[in-house]
Amino acid sequence: VPGEPGVGRIESVSDGVFAVAITLLALDLRVPDPLAVHGGTALLDRLGEQWPVYAAFVLSFVLIAEVWINHRRLFACLGRASHGLLWSNAFLLLSVITIPFATSLLGQYVTGHGASGRRVAAVAYGATWAFGGLAFNLTWWQARHHSLLRADLPADTVLRLTHRWVLGPIFYTVSAVVALIAPWVSLLGLAVLGVLFVLPPPGPPPR
Amino acid sequence: VPGEPGVGRIESVSDGVFAVAITLLALDLRVPDPLAVHGGTALLDRLGEQWPVYAAFVLSFVLIAEVWINHRRLFACLGRASHGLLWSNAFLLLSVITIPFATSLLGQYVTGHGASGRRVAAVAYGATWAFGGLAFNLTWWQARHHSLLRADLPADTVLRLTHRWVLGPIFYTVSAVVALIAPWVSLLGLAVLGVLFVLPPPGPPPR
Amino acid sequence: VPGEPGVGRIESVSDGVFAVAITLLALDLRVPDPLAVHGGTALLDRLGEQWPVYAAFVLSFVLIAEVWINHRRLFACLGRASHGLLWSNAFLLLSVITIPFATSLLGQYVTGHGASGRRVAAVAYGATWAFGGLAFNLTWWQARHHSLLRADLPADTVLRLTHRWVLGPIFYTVSAVVALIAPWVSLLGLAVLGVLFVLPPPGPPPR
Amino acid sequence: VPGEPGVGRIESVSDGVFAVAITLLALDLRVPDPLAVHGGTALLDRLGEQWPVYAAFVLSFVLIAEVWINHRRLFACLGRASHGLLWSNAFLLLSVITIPFATSLLGQYVTGHGASGRRVAAVAYGATWAFGGLAFNLTWWQARHHSLLRADLPADTVLRLTHRWVLGPIFYTVSAVVALIAPWVSLLGLAVLGVLFVLPPPGPPPR
Repeated sequence: VPGEPGVGRIESVSDGVFAVAITLLALDLRVPDPLAVHGGTALLDRLGEQWPVYAAFVLSFVLIAEVWINHRRLFACLGRASHGLLWSNAFLLLSVITIPFATSLLGQYVTGHGASGRRVAAVAYGATWAFGGLAFNLTWWQARHHSLLRADLPADTVLRLTHRWVLGPIFYTVSAVVALIAPWVSLLGLAVLGVLFVLPPPGPPPR
Repeated sequence: VPGEPGVGRIESVSDGVFAVAITLLALDLRVPDPLAVHGGTALLDRLGEQWPVYAAFVLSFVLIAEVWINHRRLFACLGRASHGLLWSNAFLLLSVITIPFATSLLGQYVTGHGASGRRVAAVAYGATWAFGGLAFNLTWWQARHHSLLRADLPADTVLRLTHRWVLGPIFYTVSAVVALIAPWVSLLGLAVLGVLFVLPPPGPPPR
Repeated sequence: VPGEPGVGRIESVSDGVFAVAITLLALDLRVPDPLAVHGGTALLDRLGEQWPVYAAFVLSFVLIAEVWINHRRLFACLGRASHGLLWSNAFLLLSVITIPFATSLLGQYVTGHGASGRRVAAVAYGATWAFGGLAFNLTWWQARHHSLLRADLPADTVLRLTHRWVLGPIFYTVSAVVALIAPWVSLLGLAVLGVLFVLPPPGPPPR
Repeated sequence: VPGEPGVGRIESVSDGVFAVAITLLALDLRVPDPLAVHGGTALLDRLGEQWPVYAAFVLSFVLIAEVWINHRRLFACLGRASHGLLWSNAFLLLSVITIPFATSLLGQYVTGHGASGRRVAAVAYGATWAFGGLAFNLTWWQARHHSLLRADLPADTVLRLTHRWVLGPIFYTVSAVVALIAPWVSLLGLAVLGVLFVLPPPGPPPR
């Protein structure tokens, strides 16, 4: 239809948001104030004290990268967009731009503020991801039920992706709930998930 | 014409500006200073106190997303650009990059500073959107009157879009004027508008 | 040649840099500290005091937008890139990302710090643009002399663009030198230039 | 294969990350606090004191630009992507977004904090680049060994690029190790490398 835009610009603005959000994560890496660092190995010590910030930075980087990898796959399946898909994708991006804040909270409160601060930070972190996972699946749901998929897409590909992607919000919701009781267990679970994302998938030679 | 650029890069740089502006909104979400948070539920309390900041963040996110959705639609109607269209689009982007500032003002002054601070913040917020709405309609006006539209665009599509888009600056100007007298009414109006944007449009099944 | 990249990604990364730089300009718009604003029209007064910052923000926005408009035109003339063109374009981007800093300097030192602060700020501002103008013309020079232009580009288009673009660094260098003696005159000249950029070009109906 | 995404979006999100990271470098250029600058040439003196920050800014700009130039070349050789390539490219981007932090550390600790601060900063800077160089070569390695290259790519192009690119991580690792003993020598080596990148390559007329 003339004047009906395609999905190209949704990919383009989403790539922009992913790129900015992933780069803003690094603003949490703070240079210790030169006026407060004196002598010997002081700078190294100060940097070392920030290890929870570095860990949260790398964890969020890996999880956002995985969301982007799936986003790229999802949009390669689309033939066109709809009002609902535009907005569910927007809410996915809303969760992505909130991740640097949730990461910052995690990096600063996971240690040194007792169980209470750690619990709040870990629950907020898991909940932000759960929200993103829901928005992602809502986007996919609309693609499937409102005839937005490419016509040549094999039915078993759709099924396989649906089964894989539905695990995301389940896992993240569980992780947010577990964080209420045992924040460290929740974070460990997310870290293991991150490692699994990076490891080569099992099965036949790389596609 | 060889050497005459198309509209692709206008879309590309605009997508970049939208993506950065929308992500910078999240810089207003501030992690409470760990040195000033002590004991029990202190962190949760501190985060809770920031509710106007969160509300302003979500409101601006939804309104910017809607501008982008309309921008994508407008540019899908264009066959080429002109000097005037480049600049009216630039002024639209000027309003978009000013929104994080206006949002920040709103989030910090809508409560706790009496009617005076709230009024200034709400008027500035509405006025920034009114400026953006004017720039958007000026862009569309130039497209229609300087023969920049695609040749195959149906006349009734053009008319329908013109009627829909002209409402924007009217609504935002009214909201800025109302804010002079009743800031909360103005903000409530914008919030209702945001919800209407997200809800599925009435009529036949989703396009 | 297989494996030889085209100019698409140079446009894409440049658009990204322009978009981020133009949006970062807005970080200079600062919300007055709520703890230091009391009573009546205090917020309005505080915002009003920042007028040099707003003026510098709008000036830089218009000038960067004009650079982008010319960048888009230049790259529409290119058929391929070269080592030299990649780097002269990179130095153009270096000046673009330095503009938010030069703008900030201008906005904060153009008033209230006597002739000395104003002079330094205005010279730095003009010099940054002069550097950018040189890099832009160097890019164009390489395109013309290293056979990077599209084969179908009319010779008179090339000549016309060359004559127009060479004025940029001349004007900006003059403005930096004038700023040594009369900063306000230099800034007024840049403001007039900005207005001329936005006004419709003389001659036949808009292209 | 329907639903299998191409390499376009990897280029697009990478361009976004490069653009944001390169622009964030400029956030290190700080405007001296107007309240602390008094009289005569005070502003100029304050700006002059920041020379290590400016030098680190330009050095990182040139090195990131070179990584981007090579990234553009590498992706022009690709026909498709794989799980492993997506992640090695992600780790390259991880190093790119960490460069502004490493640059900041360098600019603030290379002078005025004795040999100890300088050593930590220079080692961290070299190590960040070494990590990036490894990720870049891992990306290329996967492209070559998992049949991701374009079918029409000449074998000697592949060989030539492999030999050139393998030098990167070697050079950066040496620079990080040298920084342990002689930070200035390490930084001088990086600066010379930067100049070599910008100079026209030897041999026949520019491609």
